[in-house]
Amino acid sequence: MTHQVQHRLSLHALAGIDRIRPGDDIAQIILQAAAAQHPLCENDVVVIAQKIVSKSEGRRVRLAGVTPSGRARELAEIAGKDPRIVELILAESSKILRCVPGIIIVEDRRGLVLANAGIDASNVDHQDGDSVLLLPENPDRSAEILATRLTAATGARIGVIINDSIGRAWRRGTIGTAIGVSGLPGVLDLRGTRDLYGRALVSTEIGAADELAAAASILMGQAAEGRPIVIIRGAPYANQDGTAQELQRPAASDLFR
Amino acid sequence: MTHQVQHRLSLHALAGIDRIRPGDDIAQIILQAAAAQHPLCENDVVVIAQKIVSKSEGRRVRLAGVTPSGRARELAEIAGKDPRIVELILAESSKILRCVPGIIIVEDRRGLVLANAGIDASNVDHQDGDSVLLLPENPDRSAEILATRLTAATGARIGVIINDSIGRAWRRGTIGTAIGVSGLPGVLDLRGTRDLYGRALVSTEIGAADELAAAASILMGQAAEGRPIVIIRGAPYANQDGTAQELQRPAASDLFR
Repeated sequence: MTHQVQHRLSLHALAGIDRIRPGDDIAQIILQAAAAQHPLCENDVVVIAQKIVSKSEGRRVRLAGVTPSGRARELAEIAGKDPRIVELILAESSKILRCVPGIIIVEDRRGLVLANAGIDASNVDHQDGDSVLLLPENPDRSAEILATRLTAATGARIGVIINDSIGRAWRRGTIGTAIGVSGLPGVLDLRGTRDLYGRALVSTEIGAADELAAAASILMGQAAEGRPIVIIRGAPYANQDGTAQELQRPAASDLFR
Repeated sequence: MTHQVQHRLSLHALAGIDRIRPGDDIAQIILQAAAAQHPLCENDVVVIAQKIVSKSEGRRVRLAGVTPSGRARELAEIAGKDPRIVELILAESSKILRCVPGIIIVEDRRGLVLANAGIDASNVDHQDGDSVLLLPENPDRSAEILATRLTAATGARIGVIINDSIGRAWRRGTIGTAIGVSGLPGVLDLRGTRDLYGRALVSTEIGAADELAAAASILMGQAAEGRPIVIIRGAPYANQDGTAQELQRPAASDLFR
């Protein structure tokens, strides 16, 4: 793969993005805001917070309609969580990896390892009763649809990352992480590349989309800032494609789950 | 803690940084290159690749001078590695977490969990025999010295991150990660902050310096690019301080080691 390193990278958060409702056309919202504030250019990467993609896709669930199973009640007891939320965690997961007071870490149906299956009650409208937001059904597919729309509308090749703030083993704090990718590599494979002294590199898989997702997260903030869309200019991955799926280490080759 | 979210973030890789030798004055090299290319401003964060900090601190070790212990030979047999490198890994580590063909994952003396104790043979000059590069003895201290120098010389408050490309549990690919921090928070604590709808946030520890370290890594490249210094402008963490140490989850509260 080619890897055109640039000297400069710039990130620009779009302002004035209103609260997103089910059915809202995120691509159209990005196109309008970008046209007014920061017109999209060839090879720009648009990073979109998971939360607004989930909202537009109608992934909000009212807890009043959820009936917890016996297993959900058991785990909820251990974790100290609402059994209805645990029921949703179970439905979103293929495997429970850890369940301790305060946290349930799962491998979700998409293959992501994360706390509480990414289900979140913050920044969700609770006007008609307590509700939570699930991750998009298929974030790579959501990213692909958005990238296709943005590319068609602008005539410029636009990459898309859907990111979420996800915790890590070994380290404190969440960081922005790519859960959906289109139009750029998820993992950049540099095998065969030479170092400064002409030696072949040994460790050469770069989590390219995760680095961009983390960068965008710096501008998004986590709280009331409401800046869920960041345009990155200068990412050195022109004319390559990939998915967030390829960032997921298969369980069989993972030493820590 | 305050958290002044900005609309824009820009990253600029300094060009023309020569190969670094033991005793080279990294602060002076940064000041000269920045003055010519991208003068440092108040609250800029300078991200410096671990490799050049280690080289300047004389952390290169010639393998010819290393005698492996019995334990190093045993682990080297399992991992399929040079027993002399494994000897160095053991010396740099407080605990071996996993040893399988191709990889040894350790908790190092600094508390970092990473492959091969961060010891690397790429981008190292091998003219006087095979050699490898160890991590800086105390990267937080190295970052502090550099930040103090840059701040004193410019009169502007400058943050410093020393980053390295580190692998993760669960996900493929390395990402730029903060191993030394000064003049900005390692972890940003948003507890008590309210969301868009006025609710208190629940998950609120952000790996702030890791997000910046990952962002800088996009411009550094991994191979022969030789762009080990990146200036970040617009990071929303003015007038806060922290360390990379605070990003390390204590073993006792880690569910995955």
